[in-house]
Amino acid sequence: LTVFGETIADGYFSRFEGELLTSERSPFQKIDVYEHPYFGRVLTLDDLVQTTTRDEFSYHEMLVHPALAARDRVERVLIIGGGDGGTLRHVLMHGVQEVVMCEIDDAVVRLCRELLPQLSDGAFDDPRAKVVIGDGAAFVGEHTDAFDTIIVDGSDPVGPAVVLFSEDFFTACRRALRDDGVFISQTGSPLFQTDEFKMAYGNLTASFGRADPYVSFVPTYPGAIWSYMSATAGTPLPDATEDEIAARLRARGIDGRLYSPAVHRAAFALPPFVQDLCETAAPAAVPRG
Amino acid sequence: LTVFGETIADGYFSRFEGELLTSERSPFQKIDVYEHPYFGRVLTLDDLVQTTTRDEFSYHEMLVHPALAARDRVERVLIIGGGDGGTLRHVLMHGVQEVVMCEIDDAVVRLCRELLPQLSDGAFDDPRAKVVIGDGAAFVGEHTDAFDTIIVDGSDPVGPAVVLFSEDFFTACRRALRDDGVFISQTGSPLFQTDEFKMAYGNLTASFGRADPYVSFVPTYPGAIWSYMSATAGTPLPDATEDEIAARLRARGIDGRLYSPAVHRAAFALPPFVQDLCETAAPAAVPRG
Repeated sequence: LTVFGETIADGYFSRFEGELLTSERSPFQKIDVYEHPYFGRVLTLDDLVQTTTRDEFSYHEMLVHPALAARDRVERVLIIGGGDGGTLRHVLMHGVQEVVMCEIDDAVVRLCRELLPQLSDGAFDDPRAKVVIGDGAAFVGEHTDAFDTIIVDGSDPVGPAVVLFSEDFFTACRRALRDDGVFISQTGSPLFQTDEFKMAYGNLTASFGRADPYVSFVPTYPGAIWSYMSATAGTPLPDATEDEIAARLRARGIDGRLYSPAVHRAAFALPPFVQDLCETAAPAAVPRG
Repeated sequence: LTVFGETIADGYFSRFEGELLTSERSPFQKIDVYEHPYFGRVLTLDDLVQTTTRDEFSYHEMLVHPALAARDRVERVLIIGGGDGGTLRHVLMHGVQEVVMCEIDDAVVRLCRELLPQLSDGAFDDPRAKVVIGDGAAFVGEHTDAFDTIIVDGSDPVGPAVVLFSEDFFTACRRALRDDGVFISQTGSPLFQTDEFKMAYGNLTASFGRADPYVSFVPTYPGAIWSYMSATAGTPLPDATEDEIAARLRARGIDGRLYSPAVHRAAFALPPFVQDLCETAAPAAVPRG
C-alpha cells in the first residue's frame, strides 16, 4: 500500500493509504490513480486528491446543480477543466443541448475514462458532449455571447490553474456568457486558503459587479468547509426560490444526495467568518504560477 | 513532536503532529494536551481530538447558540459533559440565571483550566456557573421540570458516553426539561457514524415525538460534515425566524464567527443523504460500552 494525502496546515496531514494503480507524468502534472479501501478509486494530481468514486457526488452536485437549477433554460454549457468527466455527467442531467468541455490535459481524460469510469458514466459518448483539449483561458477568449453557463472545474488557485482566478479571465467569461448566463468556479477552502478566496472574490466582483459565494462539504477535501463562487449579470443564484428549483429538478428527473432546493438556499448562508473575507477582499493580480 | 489523530475510515487517518504537554490517565479515560503549530492547544480524550483553541468556536457556537437563541427567556441550563468549559462560556453569553455543568471527569476540568484556559475564559469563576462532578445520566434522573435547556457535550456515541444516546436517557431529559425546554446533543458524523446517527435519531424521536437534526462544519472533526440533534415539546428550533434570532443575538451582544441567523436556518436544511438516515432510523438499544 502507498501513503498519499495532503498537508492541510502546518502539522496537519490528511493521510490516505491505498494501492497505486497507475502513475503518469503528463506535460502538465503528475497523475496518480489509487484503489482505496473506503473511498474506492481516487484521482490525485500532483499528489492532491481531486476526486474519489465514493464522495465525488458531494463536489460535483454542488459545483453543477446550483448554477443549472437556477435557470429555466440552459442550452449551451462550457466546462473548463473537469477531465474526470463528473462535471460533464452532472451537466447532462439538466437537459442541455450542448456541453463543451475544454480540458488542458488529455492524459487526465484518458486515465479517468479507463480507471474511474463511474465518474463520467458514459457522458463522454453522449452526442451532446464535445471535448476540446486545450487551454481554457484561451478558449474562453475566442467566444462572445456563446454560453448559458461556464463552469470552472479546475485545480486550486495555486500553480498552473491560477490564471483561472484572474480578473482578465473572469472578464473574458462574462463576455463569453449570454445575458442571463451564470459563471461558477470552485474556490478552495475559506479556512486554509483565505488569500486565494479573497483574490477570487475581489476579481470576480470586479468583473461581474457582484459575486455570490456559497459553501458546502467535501469529505475528502481539507478542512470541512469548501467554497464555490457564482457570478451573473442576470438574476443572482441565491434569488432562485425553493419552489422554482424543486420544479426544475422534478422536470429534469434529478435526485441529489447532497443538493436539494433547501440546500441550495442554505449554501448561500455564509458563516460570518466567510463574510468577513468577502468584505475585506479586493481585486488582486494572481501570483505567478 | 508526537503524532496523534484519528482513523476516520479504513485507510484514512487525520494526522496531527504536535508537542505533547501532558498525558494523564483518569479513572475514565486517557487525557492528552498538545501544543500544535496551527491549531494551538489541542485536547484529546482516548486519542480522539475533542477541541482545539483555534477551531473550538465552530463546534461550541453550533452546539449552544441554536438552542439558546431559539428562546426568548432561558433561565436554567444543564450541560452534561463539557469539561473543557467552552460550552459553559458560550451558554453564559445568553444572559442565563444559572448553568449547572455535570462532568464525570474532574481531571478534564482541571487540565483544561490549566492548559486551555481560553476555552472557558473565566466561565468557571462566573457566579452563575455551578460545576457538579458526577454521572450525567444519574443527575438528570434526579430532576423534574427543572431546566430550560439541556446540552449534551459528550464524546461520540461509542464507549462510556453511549448511555447518553439511549431512549431512557432522552426520556429522563424530557422530564427534567420545562414545557418549552430544548434538548441538544452532538451526534457525530452522519457520513462515518451512520449507525450511531440513526440510533440517536430513532431514540430521540421516540422520547420527544420529534427530533430536528442539523449539520455544520468542524474543521478538526473527521469527514467535513458534523451533526447535532435538537428536540423539544415546544416550538421546534427550525421554526425560529431569522428576525427573532437576530434580535436576540443583538440584545445579548453575541457575534458569531460561524453562527448567524441565516446559518441557524441553513443548518436545518439537511442534505438528502442525511434525511435518508432519518427516514430509515428506529429506536434501538445502545450497544454495550
